[in-house]
Amino acid sequence: MLQLESQSLAQEMPQSTKTAVMIIGGAEDKVHGREILHTFFSRAGAADAAIAIIPSASREPAVIGERYQHIFEEMGAKEIQILDIRDRDAGNDPQWQEYLNRCTGVFMTGGDQLRLCGLLADTLVMETVRQRTLEGKITLAGTSAGAAVMGYQMIAGGGSGESPNRSLVDLTTGLGIVSDVIVDQHFHNRNRMARLISAIASHPQCIGIGIDEDTCAMVEGDGLIQVMGKGTVTILDPGELTHTNEPNVGATEPLSVFNLRLHVLCHGDRYDMRSRKVISPES
Amino acid sequence: MLQLESQSLAQEMPQSTKTAVMIIGGAEDKVHGREILHTFFSRAGAADAAIAIIPSASREPAVIGERYQHIFEEMGAKEIQILDIRDRDAGNDPQWQEYLNRCTGVFMTGGDQLRLCGLLADTLVMETVRQRTLEGKITLAGTSAGAAVMGYQMIAGGGSGESPNRSLVDLTTGLGIVSDVIVDQHFHNRNRMARLISAIASHPQCIGIGIDEDTCAMVEGDGLIQVMGKGTVTILDPGELTHTNEPNVGATEPLSVFNLRLHVLCHGDRYDMRSRKVISPES
Repeated sequence: MLQLESQSLAQEMPQSTKTAVMIIGGAEDKVHGREILHTFFSRAGAADAAIAIIPSASREPAVIGERYQHIFEEMGAKEIQILDIRDRDAGNDPQWQEYLNRCTGVFMTGGDQLRLCGLLADTLVMETVRQRTLEGKITLAGTSAGAAVMGYQMIAGGGSGESPNRSLVDLTTGLGIVSDVIVDQHFHNRNRMARLISAIASHPQCIGIGIDEDTCAMVEGDGLIQVMGKGTVTILDPGELTHTNEPNVGATEPLSVFNLRLHVLCHGDRYDMRSRKVISPES
Repeated sequence: MLQLESQSLAQEMPQSTKTAVMIIGGAEDKVHGREILHTFFSRAGAADAAIAIIPSASREPAVIGERYQHIFEEMGAKEIQILDIRDRDAGNDPQWQEYLNRCTGVFMTGGDQLRLCGLLADTLVMETVRQRTLEGKITLAGTSAGAAVMGYQMIAGGGSGESPNRSLVDLTTGLGIVSDVIVDQHFHNRNRMARLISAIASHPQCIGIGIDEDTCAMVEGDGLIQVMGKGTVTILDPGELTHTNEPNVGATEPLSVFNLRLHVLCHGDRYDMRSRKVISPES
């Protein structure tokens, strides 16, 4: 079935220099084409990029921070700083402000999203990053745990291999960079459909975004998601939801969830979060 | 969110003596409540049931056949025969006809769906079972491999842990008991959403039915699915599909699939395959 609804749009692909929020499903290619990381580098200003790496989700922040530092150095970034923040005092230290106020890209590594939020939520560093992201002044990327924190509702953890149910997902508060989404990563790779459905059933005002490994949902200021990378981005839109049953939080009984809309998007596909519609690739 | 669209229907729950096709997601409870197996027993006539067990999907047909025999004996079935068919000649042997023409329930065990179809598709035995099922004269149940064969399009095997793509699923011809469905089993348990999406993208005339373990989609003659058991039945309805990309069969590039409708149904929920609508449980 070839594009039943052929939408050859006149719209151009988004300008590659526009800032964006890049939500990466983890395990992005760091060795070969490095498409996603290179796009981050480009959108952060390419040769003019001043990049801040936040490795705080990781328990080995020095190692992982340096790994990304070398990658962006090799690409030719003008300046790179690793914000190796290991406690909340450091997150509130004004020493980072000068750099954050002139940097053009911030990259949050993988690790544990609870650790990342625990160290950085509501700190001076994160508020500055958040503010400058919302103003469109920097490109903010996060991979794996760094992706999970992007919504206001955040999946802190959960299980897999079970039917959708309330106890399958632990929800808490994320950084709220992109409103009204719940992000999950390593999505089809780690059997996370059931937990994202479970999360959306609890928060049907949110769109569920499941991102596969080496895949990126790039969000621009106007709410347009563009997909890049090797896998797919799964959109769960509960806009027409007609029913969920309502077990208690933490209950293991299975959920009823009727009339979700499901889109599987691959490289080049775009989704408009405002209209909740997919935009076909130009044919 | 409690039943946004409250549908308190006057319809009665289906009569428990009506024949049905019971598609079971594997690993059904054989020890405790045995709800699904007991429902099969009831719908096959309870104390008047004459049951045929087809263990041909299994490489240990004698062992698995006897296991179900003991269960249905214990429940009180009047008569049970194991059709231990191990080659196509046996499947065409008229010796089974007398029993098949008076039996009231047929149970197909788990194992390998390709083996089951290879031994039985288009044989005298299977044509008799099929015909009497379509006439509503017997209740036909299949679990795991025995469930996979129910559609005309059958998932023979596939992978998991990847983005939806053509090479993720091997499709072949099943027994075609229930038209226009593609069944997958052990569904959320074994991360099979991506392969069912991949299958449906190739056959958008079919509804995808993903059945979790110890869960049953019971289909009545009028196309009504009723869910029972511990987990969920996932319906993937491509009726409003607007786009799929079209990689070659076997290609590993990810799929685009827009505008699937997704329902997660649990115990007591019903779905009408003709109208493609969920019927809420009576509230």
